[in-house]
Amino acid sequence: MRIDRARLAQAMDEMGAIGATERGGLTRLALSDDDKRGRDLMVRWMREAGLRVSVDQMGNIFGERPGAEPLPAVLMGSHVDSVPTGGRYDGQLGVLCGLEVIRALNERQLSTRHPVTLAIFTNEEGARFQPAMIASGVLAGRIPLEDAYNARDKDGIRLVDELERIGYLGPEPCVPRAFRAYLELHIEQGPFLEEEGCSVGVVEGIVAISWSRLTLEGVQDHAGPTPMRIRHDALVAAADVVAGVRRIAREIGGDLVTTVGNLVVHPNIVNAIPGRVTLSIDMRDPSDAALDRALPMLDRAVREACEREGVRFTLEHYWRVPWTPFAPAVVGAIERAAKATGARWRRIRSGAGHDAQYMAALGPAGMIFVPSRDGRSHCEEEFTPLDDIEHGANTLLLAALDLAGRA
Amino acid sequence: MRIDRARLAQAMDEMGAIGATERGGLTRLALSDDDKRGRDLMVRWMREAGLRVSVDQMGNIFGERPGAEPLPAVLMGSHVDSVPTGGRYDGQLGVLCGLEVIRALNERQLSTRHPVTLAIFTNEEGARFQPAMIASGVLAGRIPLEDAYNARDKDGIRLVDELERIGYLGPEPCVPRAFRAYLELHIEQGPFLEEEGCSVGVVEGIVAISWSRLTLEGVQDHAGPTPMRIRHDALVAAADVVAGVRRIAREIGGDLVTTVGNLVVHPNIVNAIPGRVTLSIDMRDPSDAALDRALPMLDRAVREACEREGVRFTLEHYWRVPWTPFAPAVVGAIERAAKATGARWRRIRSGAGHDAQYMAALGPAGMIFVPSRDGRSHCEEEFTPLDDIEHGANTLLLAALDLAGRA
Repeated sequence: MRIDRARLAQAMDEMGAIGATERGGLTRLALSDDDKRGRDLMVRWMREAGLRVSVDQMGNIFGERPGAEPLPAVLMGSHVDSVPTGGRYDGQLGVLCGLEVIRALNERQLSTRHPVTLAIFTNEEGARFQPAMIASGVLAGRIPLEDAYNARDKDGIRLVDELERIGYLGPEPCVPRAFRAYLELHIEQGPFLEEEGCSVGVVEGIVAISWSRLTLEGVQDHAGPTPMRIRHDALVAAADVVAGVRRIAREIGGDLVTTVGNLVVHPNIVNAIPGRVTLSIDMRDPSDAALDRALPMLDRAVREACEREGVRFTLEHYWRVPWTPFAPAVVGAIERAAKATGARWRRIRSGAGHDAQYMAALGPAGMIFVPSRDGRSHCEEEFTPLDDIEHGANTLLLAALDLAGRA
Repeated sequence: MRIDRARLAQAMDEMGAIGATERGGLTRLALSDDDKRGRDLMVRWMREAGLRVSVDQMGNIFGERPGAEPLPAVLMGSHVDSVPTGGRYDGQLGVLCGLEVIRALNERQLSTRHPVTLAIFTNEEGARFQPAMIASGVLAGRIPLEDAYNARDKDGIRLVDELERIGYLGPEPCVPRAFRAYLELHIEQGPFLEEEGCSVGVVEGIVAISWSRLTLEGVQDHAGPTPMRIRHDALVAAADVVAGVRRIAREIGGDLVTTVGNLVVHPNIVNAIPGRVTLSIDMRDPSDAALDRALPMLDRAVREACEREGVRFTLEHYWRVPWTPFAPAVVGAIERAAKATGARWRRIRSGAGHDAQYMAALGPAGMIFVPSRDGRSHCEEEFTPLDDIEHGANTLLLAALDLAGRA
């Protein structure tokens, strides 16, 4: 039992054309016109594959292949939104491999005991609306629906209004649902599989993540006639914080990663001393204890930077998810499937958040990784060789079949 | 002979309402709709004051009060554009004081030998189109007209198209013209006059200015699964440069000021390692030699920051103006006028570029400063007491009269 490599590659090409950038990447922000086109194509393919398609209040799309018995489904999920100038693999590869599993089952007219359902989650990236994974968060009961609806993009547009505009404000309630297992295939987005020549990663869990937001308030002034001695430059303090955030990773070491990814200067013109800077701090580690150590270091770095420059600040630690171990039964099924494909594989941890993180709170979940060339993702250079994708998709197929049971 | 303080205050209120911000400041970007409204009001007032109004190819507005003899004019000039969330004094105060001088001369039906002309220059700030003082730069023959026309704002809109759209693409050639003297009244934008209790600053010249633009190219990647050891973070390098730019001012000391005012991150989202950062460097000193020393230090700071982080860079030193001394005859006339008003005054240097800088290349020029509360400008808190403004405007009146000569 194998997936059809050529058919999968064809679907990847068609889907990858929607929101394609000139340099081979993808810009398909959540609930944009291109996201709508991507969703429409998926819904068409799901219907053509005989799936029962439904859309919930958060725009999550579910396509069910009924099982032989009235049992909870095996879910295969991921997302089709991307970051700006992102790549053609992050998210949609998992959705397309799930579709290919369905097509392979159909081809053999193979009946399963449990239903097998393909799921597409809204706004996984968090690039347009914060926080990331907002729709699986609502599904898991961790984010109130109203909060998600009122999330605004940088132009002040509300998520719910965009859902309605693109026609994906569905009628199904977005509430916890029982499932047999949740499986998510995704690119690794790190260097480890490639470095060790593995095609498949059997993911043990997702690292703990902490997101903070910092606003620095200095004194906006003219860059010429204002002597250095009276300056309170919000960007000088911000630069000090960026260096401090990097230093935290160096001091704690191990697997801790720390990033300032978003930084906005006001008024942001050549000849004005920056009066205000806002910036984000993202910190991750498999160990919750490491983040517990890092956060007070961040507090101190910010305080000291602001004292040095005479700048006021507001620092919010607004999002935190703990280390999420995946269900041993699901991890075991994935490991057996990986072995059965004959691919080189290894156990691995995910450094990125995924919808699987919230799904793991509702039921048994697991993930399958395929390699990222040079460890790169969230960029146009994102790439995974088709050989590895084939191994990954076959692992997904065999694990889904194992968990759903032949009827 | 005195200006009318109440009439001047009334004009400041009316003009200050155009583009007013909620917190008492001003956003009136060059060639915006509000800039058009401000220009229209000025043109109406100039016509009502009997001036012969003309507009040149760069949208510079001239209103001439004829003299008794066919001689070159005494020009009084400044600008009505502002930075974003700037103040109500920078630029338009000079224009309104010039208008008040004209009105005071009219009131007394006083005839001068030389014409007295009010000039309003386009896009002095450089907040919307770079470089700053672009229109006096064209007038002085230092910037080609075509280059100025093709300057684009951040949305890619060309200066010439905006000139046309708001109806200020005039027919008069924008070329050097002879003048008897150029006088510009402006707020100090620094702390010195206030600190010493002076109402009037007699400006000896304008500091040398250097503008550079830096692009840092790192490797955009996912903030989670990318271990610290393989990162090339353009923002970490940028933060290093911001600290380095501050260090240059500390090491050289004296009057040198250094500022990173503009910094833009790409893709600028929480969970992506910044792949590209662009930033500006502004350095100023009364001594050209100090800038000659600072620029190689900047080169080295950038090179070292980029080596540390493994980031590529492009650094352009794209604009440089030397120390501009004002004409002794004009400075002398301003000093005599300041003394005659009875105000406390001092000699001072300008840390900011002004249209007077380019005008000084064409003929005898000088400037009059009035104090800035807390040295602040380019912000909504910009403020100058009316008592000081009155002294400044009277200094302008007496200096203009001295230079234009009573008929």
